[in-house]
Amino acid sequence: MDKEFRRQEGNVDGIGFLPGLAIDTVIFGFHDGQLKVLLLEYKNTALYALPGGFVHDDEDVNQAARRVLQSRTSLTNIYLEQFYVFGDLSRFDPSPLKAIMEARGYIPPAGHWLLKRFVSIGYYALVDFTKAIPAPDEISDTCNWYSLNELPVLMQDHRQIISKALQTLQRDLDQKLIGFNLMTEEFTMGDLQSLYETILNKKLIRAAFQRKMLSLGILERVAKKWTGGAHKAPYLYKFISDKTFVDNI
Amino acid sequence: MDKEFRRQEGNVDGIGFLPGLAIDTVIFGFHDGQLKVLLLEYKNTALYALPGGFVHDDEDVNQAARRVLQSRTSLTNIYLEQFYVFGDLSRFDPSPLKAIMEARGYIPPAGHWLLKRFVSIGYYALVDFTKAIPAPDEISDTCNWYSLNELPVLMQDHRQIISKALQTLQRDLDQKLIGFNLMTEEFTMGDLQSLYETILNKKLIRAAFQRKMLSLGILERVAKKWTGGAHKAPYLYKFISDKTFVDNI
Repeated sequence: MDKEFRRQEGNVDGIGFLPGLAIDTVIFGFHDGQLKVLLLEYKNTALYALPGGFVHDDEDVNQAARRVLQSRTSLTNIYLEQFYVFGDLSRFDPSPLKAIMEARGYIPPAGHWLLKRFVSIGYYALVDFTKAIPAPDEISDTCNWYSLNELPVLMQDHRQIISKALQTLQRDLDQKLIGFNLMTEEFTMGDLQSLYETILNKKLIRAAFQRKMLSLGILERVAKKWTGGAHKAPYLYKFISDKTFVDNI
Repeated sequence: MDKEFRRQEGNVDGIGFLPGLAIDTVIFGFHDGQLKVLLLEYKNTALYALPGGFVHDDEDVNQAARRVLQSRTSLTNIYLEQFYVFGDLSRFDPSPLKAIMEARGYIPPAGHWLLKRFVSIGYYALVDFTKAIPAPDEISDTCNWYSLNELPVLMQDHRQIISKALQTLQRDLDQKLIGFNLMTEEFTMGDLQSLYETILNKKLIRAAFQRKMLSLGILERVAKKWTGGAHKAPYLYKFISDKTFVDNI
């Protein structure tokens, strides 16, 4: 336990990692009509943060992002997009990482690689909420879903990172048909419309939405949803699997 | 002359720069019905490359991109987008930079920072071809426009970087109305359609295109273009300036 981070703590020069480069992932899930993101809470610091990590010097940057995602959600084949590089000088603030290390009883020497300026590559991921199993990393207490409209105070510029990810998701939604990655395996047209309305933050017209979605040729009608009464039970749909869009990077 | 690069050559540890981080810019221009990109040719090496650079440790990453763009085109206020981070292990190839330094009579020691693995942030820029003044950097012979369908052999993964930039431009074109950044100050509807057709690589229907563009409310009719005869002279348009979209990063 804590082995990986302890190795990094003791590794004052950051041997084995690309210097100054971090990854932050905004992992979106959809549940109870709300868009949610996964956040970690760091031990003894009351700091909330996006799941993130560093890039090993023998792996691709995108691989590092997949590794972070898999370890925080237990999911592989997640829909993943690079969306922005956060590289402003003003975001340089070593104090949270220093606080995290100190809360663990480790006093980093001046010049420790984790206290230098980092440029962070932002990724967003879309996962099926019902399948992800959130798991904290070695230095965090909890890994939980938080609704976008009830976020705790986040460290550094992580709130801005989430905002930018959401903007990109809104832009990409229609164009790339990626919203389906947030759905459970079978869903009603109402579920899908609720997802779109939540992400886009506006009401859509039911008939037009249904017509548009069906015209895409990517949905297969499975069965009627059992609702107790036969009357007006909605249809369940699933994705035609060879038309899914997994891992675009 | 050559001062900046000489400073970097002698600067074996890369003091003053963010380690392992580069910027590559795909600068698009439109001329004679063709989409073009700016390329540099390096002295005595026959290597062609995208304009690029490194990030000073006291500047924002986006600032570094603007600095590169300005020094290669003499333009400020360029429309600029981050589009992808190129971070695969497989792209690591120190030989071109070694060749460039050796062609200049400098033999870099093993462990020189420029010979280590770099992650590159790709930016694309849209400029008015008639206004850009291409200027080589300290270590290149020439800086010229090349048509996308007649590119020379490019170093490292620069051809892939151009392809990815073009894909992003195609995707962004309608959504963000950014194509106007590639036009001269005044243009005919035919010029604009030709631009769209070139980027999207397909023919568009004239009446529908014109209707769509005019419906956006961002074009102002200036005058008839003088063509020698009054008969069927096309209108000239310009952008309503407070609706231009400069520098989105």
